[in-house]
Amino acid sequence: MTDDERAIRELVKTWFEASHSGDLQTVLDLMTDDAIFLVPGAEPFGKKVFAAAFNGMKGVLIESKSDIQEIQIFGDWAYFRSHIDMTATAPGGTPARRSGYALTIMRKEPDGRWRLARDANLLTARDV
Amino acid sequence: MTDDERAIRELVKTWFEASHSGDLQTVLDLMTDDAIFLVPGAEPFGKKVFAAAFNGMKGVLIESKSDIQEIQIFGDWAYFRSHIDMTATAPGGTPARRSGYALTIMRKEPDGRWRLARDANLLTARDV
Repeated sequence: MTDDERAIRELVKTWFEASHSGDLQTVLDLMTDDAIFLVPGAEPFGKKVFAAAFNGMKGVLIESKSDIQEIQIFGDWAYFRSHIDMTATAPGGTPARRSGYALTIMRKEPDGRWRLARDANLLTARDV
Repeated sequence: MTDDERAIRELVKTWFEASHSGDLQTVLDLMTDDAIFLVPGAEPFGKKVFAAAFNGMKGVLIESKSDIQEIQIFGDWAYFRSHIDMTATAPGGTPARRSGYALTIMRKEPDGRWRLARDANLLTARDV
């Protein structure tokens, strides 16, 4: 495994851990300022809308795991494909499960750190 | 516009024209042999399953247009984001419309031609 691949896998791990603990600042620091997120049935959105949605989930316990199925790195750009399984539980609520695949594009920025730049998230609701 | 960007835009145009005319061979020649397609609610699939699905749509008129919103090219790899609007009409049937966004990864192969390598398609059903 190259250093770049290791760094990208580490970033994904950090992203999911920070989502679990509600640490928005850490997650925001893992994406580029011009990051764009694509999800089914909605317009593409950026970092500000991501942050607002994250804040809107305050108190909701997010448990998720990502299985990276392919990483391709070419210089300062990379993409990876992953399968994600996620359960969100609001206080006193029943868990809502979503799972599916994602295609993510990463950029290595001038500070030498990889960050998420584009993300197509195809997760759909599943029975828990 | 660079030659590479022009070639990628031309490929997308050819893809949609060939889909419209039911020309499977042309579409298959526009993707790499290891192409992988991601759609919501299904497992990723490759060229063979794509071909079988295409053949299963025989007689269905596909009218679609793609609006490319961003292309980034880095050497022999590129990605683009697009908005797609598609209507499928079976003989004697009512048109079914799907629209949404896609994130597509392209590879320039040793023969110098760009081909689709990975495609995350987030289209959802819409009212016609």
